[in-house]
Amino acid sequence: MTDELLHFIRFPSVSAGDKHGDSLRACAEWLAAHLRQLGLHRAQLSETDGAPIVYAEWLGAADRPTALLYGHYDVQPADPLSEWTTPPFQPEIRNGAIYGRGACDDKGQCFAHLKAIEAFLKTSGDLPVNIRVVIEGEEETGSEHLERWIATHREALATDVIVISDDAMPRPDQPAITYSMRGSVGCEISIRNAQGDLHSGHYGGVLHNPIQALCDVLCQLRARDGRIAVHGIYDDAPEPVPEERAYMARVGLADREILRNARAEAMAGEAGFSAYERATIRPALNITGIKGGYQGNGMKGIVPAQASAKIDLRLAPSQNARRAARLLNNRLRELAPEGLDVALRMLKISPPVRIDRRHPAMRAAARAFRRGFGHAPVFIRSGGTIPAARMFATILNATPLLMGFGLPDDSLHGPNEHFSLRQFLRGIATSIALWEELGRGVAPAPGLRKAAAS
Amino acid sequence: MTDELLHFIRFPSVSAGDKHGDSLRACAEWLAAHLRQLGLHRAQLSETDGAPIVYAEWLGAADRPTALLYGHYDVQPADPLSEWTTPPFQPEIRNGAIYGRGACDDKGQCFAHLKAIEAFLKTSGDLPVNIRVVIEGEEETGSEHLERWIATHREALATDVIVISDDAMPRPDQPAITYSMRGSVGCEISIRNAQGDLHSGHYGGVLHNPIQALCDVLCQLRARDGRIAVHGIYDDAPEPVPEERAYMARVGLADREILRNARAEAMAGEAGFSAYERATIRPALNITGIKGGYQGNGMKGIVPAQASAKIDLRLAPSQNARRAARLLNNRLRELAPEGLDVALRMLKISPPVRIDRRHPAMRAAARAFRRGFGHAPVFIRSGGTIPAARMFATILNATPLLMGFGLPDDSLHGPNEHFSLRQFLRGIATSIALWEELGRGVAPAPGLRKAAAS
Repeated sequence: MTDELLHFIRFPSVSAGDKHGDSLRACAEWLAAHLRQLGLHRAQLSETDGAPIVYAEWLGAADRPTALLYGHYDVQPADPLSEWTTPPFQPEIRNGAIYGRGACDDKGQCFAHLKAIEAFLKTSGDLPVNIRVVIEGEEETGSEHLERWIATHREALATDVIVISDDAMPRPDQPAITYSMRGSVGCEISIRNAQGDLHSGHYGGVLHNPIQALCDVLCQLRARDGRIAVHGIYDDAPEPVPEERAYMARVGLADREILRNARAEAMAGEAGFSAYERATIRPALNITGIKGGYQGNGMKGIVPAQASAKIDLRLAPSQNARRAARLLNNRLRELAPEGLDVALRMLKISPPVRIDRRHPAMRAAARAFRRGFGHAPVFIRSGGTIPAARMFATILNATPLLMGFGLPDDSLHGPNEHFSLRQFLRGIATSIALWEELGRGVAPAPGLRKAAAS
Repeated sequence: MTDELLHFIRFPSVSAGDKHGDSLRACAEWLAAHLRQLGLHRAQLSETDGAPIVYAEWLGAADRPTALLYGHYDVQPADPLSEWTTPPFQPEIRNGAIYGRGACDDKGQCFAHLKAIEAFLKTSGDLPVNIRVVIEGEEETGSEHLERWIATHREALATDVIVISDDAMPRPDQPAITYSMRGSVGCEISIRNAQGDLHSGHYGGVLHNPIQALCDVLCQLRARDGRIAVHGIYDDAPEPVPEERAYMARVGLADREILRNARAEAMAGEAGFSAYERATIRPALNITGIKGGYQGNGMKGIVPAQASAKIDLRLAPSQNARRAARLLNNRLRELAPEGLDVALRMLKISPPVRIDRRHPAMRAAARAFRRGFGHAPVFIRSGGTIPAARMFATILNATPLLMGFGLPDDSLHGPNEHFSLRQFLRGIATSIALWEELGRGVAPAPGLRKAAAS
């Protein structure tokens, strides 16, 4: 099983940029063939305007519920390559973990479920639930073509729950089920003054410098108290009620644990909230990249022609993503320096997700974790964004079960990403239990169904 | 002559970075051989701890003054390559100009003088002055090893004037002699929080973002009125006297001409001064490059580990460069955000240059321009920095003659750098006249010698 997973990780299936189309398709084709080998039916690539979606199903459990397993075979870009101990697409096992881009996010976690399905189909020959498998190739770039695909195949995808393992549990012995995820808005701002770079001896102090202009804009997106300085952005992000804060304080990571997991030095952010709260139920504005002017070693005497930055705005579970995107766009327009060319490009808009902790399917997932990990899970909130969870929940009216098998220090999206073999094996055991627990029924209690997805 | 210059430009003799060492040496060797062909004596490479210096001389004019021709064979980096119409190191002639990196700065301008020397040596067989040629390979990175080299060879380099053509005249029919140049201080600031990039879903709003921290620092280097917010930086840059401002207003470019030459959209800088003044007699702080986080297409959801920027501080002719470097360093230390790793690196410190307009050698240069271009030159100030001019002037106690043959829109340091063939030919004619004019004597009037170089 580990060898198969290493093979899966070797595909450099990076979805950002436009250099990896062939790798994405090769990875998808290998995966479809693998699903066929497991004993799943109708394993196939389903085309979109972007990367193909891998689909398979097993619908032999008449009168039982249906679960849709969602995962993604695409991965984050691997740069900066120099910070990896071993190459990102030549995975290696050390210290009991698989190191490689996508080891945890999401190839390893998704693979645990596939191996659980295989365990049933290659022993008893059937499964305790009906299962649909949907593994897409554009999660890391915002699942651009997934929503339309789900809508198009709405009838054929009918399901009761959506099983997603694409996140982390707080500690190795503390499994967790996620009951909310933040939304996110991604955009890019570019500022240009001249046609080309100019001599800074001749023009330094004369021309408006686009890097300085960009820094001015970015600084004005943040208030002194660490809040986001975008008018109206907090209107649909009310403070949580005291009971919820107390529950979060009990089950969530402490500030010092979060800082240690990040191996970082300094915190920042909205005053008056714990790091766990800031990361999960509060909006946050974050610059993910900036560039402009000379990038090489030493000095180049120029007034740069142009500068640009990428902005990632994470949204509280209660927030409206389109509204937030509009407010951010308005604020950037308002801050745009006069006389310079300013271009704004919206790259991503993903609404948040909320799930009722009391839903019977959530209880079934909790029992599965208890069997697979030997510990009862806590219910946590996540700061991440899985656009697919919201899309499936909304269009198919099904309940997402967000059961991360990763760990907080797995370096998701960073260099030296890894996935613990122990988590992999316990994930498989949990998945086996999950299919059994779900097979016993997941009908929501009266009045809960409507609240399940928002 | 043009074919020879094209050959000279084809060497990708970029001094910044560490990838072009072989090209620099190949270019220097070709140049030394070329000086030998012209009829100069002792043409050779003189080694330094960096790029070699090309030296040659002709000392057959007994009892005549000596001139030292200084130039540089290194060039600025050519990126961004995508903005060049034709490749930077495959020079091409179009619209009456040679396009290529270094065409103007400084291969073309320096070559005009060499062709004038050749004209004498290949016709009459001698020169009206003694000439030393010093062409270095590190000008664009701050002439790091030149000062020690001049000091070491101080006796052997004895000269009366330093001839440098490495700048622009205001208009094609308006030659100019430069009587001051700004100094410059270059430094780099890097800010790091984490070991590696982190997931912005999990850590956005939690960790201090080094790009935001860097923008905060950079914004605080500039006051609202466009002045540099570095304590004490204006103390040794007093306002010019009214007579000087009136002369500058008469001979200098108007604001709109400067903006048009730059093909840029917006000006900025210190209030109360014309663009020409801001570019030449006022200090200016300019961000020449910034980078951090994800640089590719699309979105990557990270809190970046690290961000850095390069800062270029240009100094008024009266300023002390070491003091300015210390003040900038102090200010950056003061602004460094608490809890983050902040690294500062000083890349360059070059004092400014002032030359007395009334010096006889300046008068000789003016006559040469009148003969070569058919127009009397104006005396102008330059915003650029030629560290060599100050080094030669100080160590050899000689007068720099700064006679740019370039034009303001030649795109020095930028993409599509070019050098007009008409300027090239008139430059050669001017240089022929210059050697003759200098041969008639350049002894300064009593009391002027000491003021010649500062």
